[in-house]
Amino acid sequence: MSPRAKVPTRDRIVYASAELLRRQGYAGTGLKQIASEAQAPFGSLYHFFPGGKEQLAEEVLRTGGRFFLALYEAFAAAAPDLPTAVRDFFAGAAQTLENTDFADACPIATVAGEVASTNEVLRQATADVFESWLAAVTEDATRAGVNPARARGLAQAVLALLEGAFLLSRATRSIEPMRSSGDAAVALVRAALAEATMSTEVDDG
Amino acid sequence: MSPRAKVPTRDRIVYASAELLRRQGYAGTGLKQIASEAQAPFGSLYHFFPGGKEQLAEEVLRTGGRFFLALYEAFAAAAPDLPTAVRDFFAGAAQTLENTDFADACPIATVAGEVASTNEVLRQATADVFESWLAAVTEDATRAGVNPARARGLAQAVLALLEGAFLLSRATRSIEPMRSSGDAAVALVRAALAEATMSTEVDDG
Repeated sequence: MSPRAKVPTRDRIVYASAELLRRQGYAGTGLKQIASEAQAPFGSLYHFFPGGKEQLAEEVLRTGGRFFLALYEAFAAAAPDLPTAVRDFFAGAAQTLENTDFADACPIATVAGEVASTNEVLRQATADVFESWLAAVTEDATRAGVNPARARGLAQAVLALLEGAFLLSRATRSIEPMRSSGDAAVALVRAALAEATMSTEVDDG
Repeated sequence: MSPRAKVPTRDRIVYASAELLRRQGYAGTGLKQIASEAQAPFGSLYHFFPGGKEQLAEEVLRTGGRFFLALYEAFAAAAPDLPTAVRDFFAGAAQTLENTDFADACPIATVAGEVASTNEVLRQATADVFESWLAAVTEDATRAGVNPARARGLAQAVLALLEGAFLLSRATRSIEPMRSSGDAAVALVRAALAEATMSTEVDDG
């Protein structure tokens, strides 16, 4: 019995699907390949996911979204302040790109691009995931002292930098875009915090 | 004779492919659908593109890349300075998203995500296109006075903001991420120009 076979079949299916979807997308991933990679009988896919590939993909997107959110929260909890958390998260993303030969990036981005205009169920799943990430960064920025009216825009820009850098780094096979985008994200966070401090000083004065 | 039929068949094929690829991706777009949308005989696809879908997609990516570069250069030429050019380009992107029901965004992003780990010919095409855009913004930033050592990193961050915002805006069906990312891009450009001015003043002093 291989170590992998000890993982429940359903979990193996979700895990294999997550890897394939983030690397090659939704349309390019077939159920036969998923069954093969998961070392699962083909029939088990429809047993666990009667809705077929769409249902499986939706679960993969939402599970990947929760995992990535937990990863961000772990970085935020370990860092002394928000600029450090953002810096470390981008550095971790660059490291992951290097370690996986530029294959593993955002768990939902490749599919999100494909389904935005073609599959409403999956588009909604990607929108919900992005919103959950934006909410977390917005809350952290507000708690760090950023003006609440500015915090959401800051979170959107930081997430856009991360997603854009994943795409540019994967396409050019270079971590340079991820490093530059990390520097830019930290600069934006610092500027928002400095602006908040200045307005507090004005209020105090 | 419909007005469309006056466009040469090859151009109709490339145009229809560009629309389909940016909206639904490479794997999700079939040659039959392209022939149908282009109002072209199926056989004409292999007549003009003996290399099939891959050859057609490569031409679409490179053509779309040149078109988008020309669009940026038109914005840059019309603007009095770099921050205004960047602001106007992001505003134009937001307008295009609204006008096309969030379908038309970057001409190469959806395919770039799909092919980065799966098709070396097309990945190289997307890398070449991204590099051409980075070179243009880097050159403009340098000419505007940004320290040449900083200009490329600035260009990478601005392009990452644009690409990330396309993805977030399409997924959430909101131009808010594009607006926030445009504001962030302008702030980064202004900060880089201010830094350059300060270091000049120090040099002069």
